[in-house]
Amino acid sequence: MNFRKAHKEDLPAIVRLLADDELGSKRERYEDPLPDVYYEAFAAIESQIGNQILLAVEEDKVIGCIQLTMIPGLARQGMKRAQIEGVRVDKDYRGKRIGEALFKEAIAVAKAENCGLVQLTTDKARKDAYRFYERLGFTASHEGMKLIF
Amino acid sequence: MNFRKAHKEDLPAIVRLLADDELGSKRERYEDPLPDVYYEAFAAIESQIGNQILLAVEEDKVIGCIQLTMIPGLARQGMKRAQIEGVRVDKDYRGKRIGEALFKEAIAVAKAENCGLVQLTTDKARKDAYRFYERLGFTASHEGMKLIF
Repeated sequence: MNFRKAHKEDLPAIVRLLADDELGSKRERYEDPLPDVYYEAFAAIESQIGNQILLAVEEDKVIGCIQLTMIPGLARQGMKRAQIEGVRVDKDYRGKRIGEALFKEAIAVAKAENCGLVQLTTDKARKDAYRFYERLGFTASHEGMKLIF
Repeated sequence: MNFRKAHKEDLPAIVRLLADDELGSKRERYEDPLPDVYYEAFAAIESQIGNQILLAVEEDKVIGCIQLTMIPGLARQGMKRAQIEGVRVDKDYRGKRIGEALFKEAIAVAKAENCGLVQLTTDKARKDAYRFYERLGFTASHEGMKLIF
């Protein structure tokens, strides 16, 4: 298994992972051809400094993804923070610590870019995810609040 | 009171607000001249598409601030989300619904930019903030997890 940044050609494989999930299955459109909205979103990700999708790849197959956005800010003496979104591991590859490896890779990128912290929110409905993040060293010190339009 | 984007010249006023806070007082360096780290961070904010600090201003005095970063992503059919950080209101102007007005301005900007949701994390130690966000329509559906280096 190795890690690399996502390219446009990886989009169908990434959306397959996003859709193959209890919450994601109702939210995504994994179709052939893939809807344009995903290509437009990927172009926007690529045009934003510090925003990237990292992939775990085994023998050319995309088996995991994680989005990492580095956000500069003023607080904590101008500390940059890394925001994690869209973490998924292929169902056929669960239990092999691929999520853990993907996170460690993302954390290493955040450290190399001088971020002072990594943050994410996890849906309270995802009980297992919560424990997974605690094992990685995250603390549930905050409430994650959403206002959905 | 009116709202506008922050400029470099506003930095001392913004850091004054960040420092004048129970948690912020231990984290910031509100000094004259202001440490370079804040100017460097502000330049990084300005260079990142979608990242901005909005100010509430009354008679040329900065009385509130909020940082809004629009993050494009693939999940939810390529939905863009708005991330809020660094919200502060001058202590002398509390109880005048300035925070509420600042949030409504940030939410309007997020909607105008086609974001599908606004999200933030609030320290569980800030009991009042939690209720404030619920009144604005936010739901505490997620755990906010941090890994501080």
